[in-house]
This record gives sequence, structure tokens and C-alpha cells, in this order.
Amino acid sequence: MSLNSVFQYLVPKDRKFIPLLESASSNLVEVSNVLYNLMTISDPVKRIEMVRLIEKLEHKGDEITHTIFSELATTFITPFDREDIQYLASGLDDIIDYIHGSAKRIELYKIDPIHPSMVKLAELIQQCAKELNEAVGSLRSMRNMTKIRESLVKVNSIENHADDLFDNAVARLFEDEKNAVEIIKIKEVLSALETATDKCEDVANTIETIILKQA
Amino acid sequence: MSLNSVFQYLVPKDRKFIPLLESASSNLVEVSNVLYNLMTISDPVKRIEMVRLIEKLEHKGDEITHTIFSELATTFITPFDREDIQYLASGLDDIIDYIHGSAKRIELYKIDPIHPSMVKLAELIQQCAKELNEAVGSLRSMRNMTKIRESLVKVNSIENHADDLFDNAVARLFEDEKNAVEIIKIKEVLSALETATDKCEDVANTIETIILKQA
Amino acid sequence: MSLNSVFQYLVPKDRKFIPLLESASSNLVEVSNVLYNLMTISDPVKRIEMVRLIEKLEHKGDEITHTIFSELATTFITPFDREDIQYLASGLDDIIDYIHGSAKRIELYKIDPIHPSMVKLAELIQQCAKELNEAVGSLRSMRNMTKIRESLVKVNSIENHADDLFDNAVARLFEDEKNAVEIIKIKEVLSALETATDKCEDVANTIETIILKQA
Repeated sequence: MSLNSVFQYLVPKDRKFIPLLESASSNLVEVSNVLYNLMTISDPVKRIEMVRLIEKLEHKGDEITHTIFSELATTFITPFDREDIQYLASGLDDIIDYIHGSAKRIELYKIDPIHPSMVKLAELIQQCAKELNEAVGSLRSMRNMTKIRESLVKVNSIENHADDLFDNAVARLFEDEKNAVEIIKIKEVLSALETATDKCEDVANTIETIILKQA
Repeated sequence: MSLNSVFQYLVPKDRKFIPLLESASSNLVEVSNVLYNLMTISDPVKRIEMVRLIEKLEHKGDEITHTIFSELATTFITPFDREDIQYLASGLDDIIDYIHGSAKRIELYKIDPIHPSMVKLAELIQQCAKELNEAVGSLRSMRNMTKIRESLVKVNSIENHADDLFDNAVARLFEDEKNAVEIIKIKEVLSALETATDKCEDVANTIETIILKQA
Repeated sequence: MSLNSVFQYLVPKDRKFIPLLESASSNLVEVSNVLYNLMTISDPVKRIEMVRLIEKLEHKGDEITHTIFSELATTFITPFDREDIQYLASGLDDIIDYIHGSAKRIELYKIDPIHPSMVKLAELIQQCAKELNEAVGSLRSMRNMTKIRESLVKVNSIENHADDLFDNAVARLFEDEKNAVEIIKIKEVLSALETATDKCEDVANTIETIILKQA
């Protein structure tokens, strides 16, 4: 119930921020699909092509984020509180950055074969991306609040699952892998993937704040 | 001297946020006590019980944080600036997260015996928690500012001490421990403990901002 | 176009925040110069003197940041939006913290000789510091926007370069260095340096937000 939410009743429907946020979240879905493909493909040449594609989509995401920030700085009335749009945009950007970081490390550190826990984490990221995209899509009408909340609860529960998966994967790595350099490399990739799910949870929390304020 | 602080004179004393913040900070004291016990107990079965207890208290803390955020999103007038309450609540939550993270790693990585520098860091975290709890408790009346400031200065000085302790512990580890895998494990736990004291400093800084604005 | 920017037309030119921010950014330039000298000097005694000097300048930076935060909490009208001044001050502080962290690790972990990629990263940090200092200096008059934007674009491109440099240095480290403990030590220093350039980019983004709002 901020001053901004009072203003919102006086102005026509937003035609700027909601479409931009939707592009950002659907770009995230695409990146997360490519990540999952990268993890499950065995041809090393095709795997590198996937890393390049993630890079390209990451640049696209950067441009969307940049446009949102420019619009925010020069627009007086926003569909939700200014800082929530900012958190939402940078949160979606952060998820893609960590996905990109993990893909890049797989290439640079010549990780092969892909560790089974990496595949599982990529699958969890893909699920989070899908839920977040649906939640962002529902911000337009602000109807179907029950469904948005279900998506947010799912993201929180996937993140908890990813947390446990990461902790156990690292613990097993310490037991099974005797080469410390290999441990460092694999841990770096797992850690980037796990942080991506943390960032998904941050975005879910931001969306929750937005819908609470509109209530 | 924000618009919010002007409103505060017109409304009855807060009965919502201050008690919630007090629960959060007293929960932190409890978590930090359990952490210290965990570090100083030698019975491995009892140590695991302590990890479980920290987990339980961390969930309790999550619920308090979540309540504060929901209340913030739906309340028009707050006892301090909205974003300061938000920083304070998530700051207290972050400290507990890092305490939990260090306890979990001790269990998962089967760290035994506990490294002496872990015990010392747990003691410093316990001291910070006690000072922060006192400072949060004094926000209610906003009297005894000298005592609050003393607490905040203490937290800053404990954090500096923890920083040096961590740096020296890691440097010694590199010299004394020849097993790289052991280095990685111990460093992970020390690093989570040290980050917990960083988060204590962040909370101290937020409290300082709050009392400066009320001056 | 916030309420604050409307107020700004009604009050005399800022004599408080701009000079403080200028001190903070010129202190950063000094720290980055000392870091570069530290990296290129071969005398180990002089190198330790440089670490001490960075420590001293870091304390000076802390005091400037602290003054800015106190002033922010007690001042009603600010030359730019309150939160942007806050981000700018803590961003400049963060850069110095990571520079200090990398210098401290070089001393503590007895890194000798200095890795060539550390020298290159220190040079990139020095370039970023110079560009940021010029951009901060131009905030006073808000003229010569083209030149500010050029500086910000340069910082973004230097950060991309630092990112690639770091990734490739770590990848090569994994291939060439067989001692895992050495890898961990060198990676810690490189990582602190690379994070310093990330923080430079954050500051550049904050300055961009400030000038967009004034447009």
C-alpha cells in the first residue's frame, strides 16, 4: 500500500514493464532448456554449441535488463513499486548469469563426463524457470492468485531440494574423488548451479512481495 | 527524517514489528548458543543432535522473517523506515543461515575433531548475537542510546577480530595441512563461520542507520 | 523523476555529498595504484609495505563511507536519490575491500612470485578506478554527459575483459599446476581481484541510474 499503488488506479494499464519482464522470464526458460540439453548431450562438439547459445541468450537477457533499468529511471508511474521491478529484473538476470557461469566452467575446465548431480540440478533449475515464468505471466492480470502462490511454493521447495542435493553431492565427492583438483573443478560447477536455484528463490520472494502489496 | 518518521508521531506505539524483530534476535542468540555447544562437545552423537536443533531453530527463524515480510507488504505505517525493517529482518535471517551452513558442513564432511579456530569463531558469533539482541531490544524505547552504540561498536570490533582469526587460520592451514581435500573441507566451514560475523556487522550497521534517523 | 529530484530545484547546490563521494573515488584511485605497484615490485619487504599502505587507505575509505551514511540518515534533501548515494558509497567501499582482500592474501599465503594474470587484473582494476573517479567527478556539474557515458561503457568493457582473463587463468591453472594447494591459494587471490572488477561494474551501473534520473 505505497503511494505508487495509489497512483496506479489513476493511469492506464502498463504497456511497458510487464511485457519486458515477460520477455526476461521467457528468455530464462529458454536458457534453462539449453542448459538441460547441454547436460544430457554426449557429443562434445554439440555441447560447446550449447555453451555458445547460452552466451547469446545471456547477452539478450542483459539487453532486456538494461532496457528495464533505463525505463525505470525515466518513468514516473510503474505498475508495481519501482524497487520491486528492479529486484525482479536483476533477479532474473542473476539466475541466467549463474547458469551461464556453470556452462562456461564445464567448457573451460573440460568437465567430461557430466556429473550426475549436475544433470539433476539442471533439471531443478529448468523446473524453477518454468514456474517463475508462469508467475511473471500472471502478474499482468493479477487474477488466479492461488495459481501464482502454488508456483512460488514450488520454487521454494525445489530450492530446498537443490540445497540438499548439492550438500550431499559435495560430501560424496569428498569421499569418492581422491584427486583434489577434480574436486575443486566439479565443486565450482555444482556451486554455480546451486546458486542459480538460490536466485530463483529470491525472484519467487520478490513476486510474493508484489502480490502481497496488491492484495 | 523521512516521511515515515513524521507519520510515526501520529500513530500509537508499534505492537507488531518490534516484538517480531525481538523474537528474531532472541532466536539468533539461541542458535549461536547451540553452535557453541556443538563445537565444544566431543560426543559425536550429541553433536549431530545439535545440528538437528540448529535446523529446527533455522526453520523457526524463517517463519518469523516470513511474517515480518508479509506484515511489511500490507502495513502502511511502520515504526522505522520500511527498508530498514526489511534489511534488519533479512540480516538476522542471513546470520542464522550461515551458522546453519557451517553446522551442516561439519556433519556432512565428517569434520572431527573440531578445529580450534572453529571454536573461537563460534564464540565470537555468540558474542555478536548477544550484543545484537540487546541492541534490538533497546529499539523499543529508543532510550539508552549510549548503550546501543556500545553494542554496535563491540560487534564491529568482534567482526574485525573474526576476520583476522579467519585469515590466519587459513594461512596456517596452508602451511600445516598437506592434504588438499582436508584444506578444502576445513576452509569451507571456517568461511561460513566468518561470513556469519560479516552478516552480524551488516545488522549492526542497519541498527545504526535506524537510530541515526530517529535522532 | 522522484519527489527528491523535484526538491533539488528548491535548494542550494549540495556542499556535502558530492565532495564526500569525490574523496571516496579518489581514495579508490590511490588504492588501485598501490595495488598495481605491489604486483610489479619484486622486493618482498617493499611489497609488504604496500599491503600496509592499502590497509591504511582502506581504513580511510571506511571513515568516508561512514560519514556519508551518517549524513544520509540525518539529511532531508540529497543531490540524488538517497538510495543511489548509498549504493554509490557502499559500492566504492566494496571495491576497496576486495582490493584489500587480494593484497592481504598475497601476504598471508606467501604468494611469490606474483602470477602474471594477477598483474593484468590489477592493471584492469586501476583503469576502472580511473574511469569511475572521472565519472564521479562529473556528477558535480552534470555537464559533459557524453564523457561520463564513455567512462561507464569503458568500465563495462574492462569488466568483461577481466571476466575472460580470470576464467582462462583458472582453466590454465588447472592444467599447468599440479599442486592442488597452490591452485587454491592462487585462485583465491585471482577471485578477489575479479570480484573487485565486478564491484566496479556495479558502481558504473549506479552512476548510470543517477544520470538517467537527472535527464
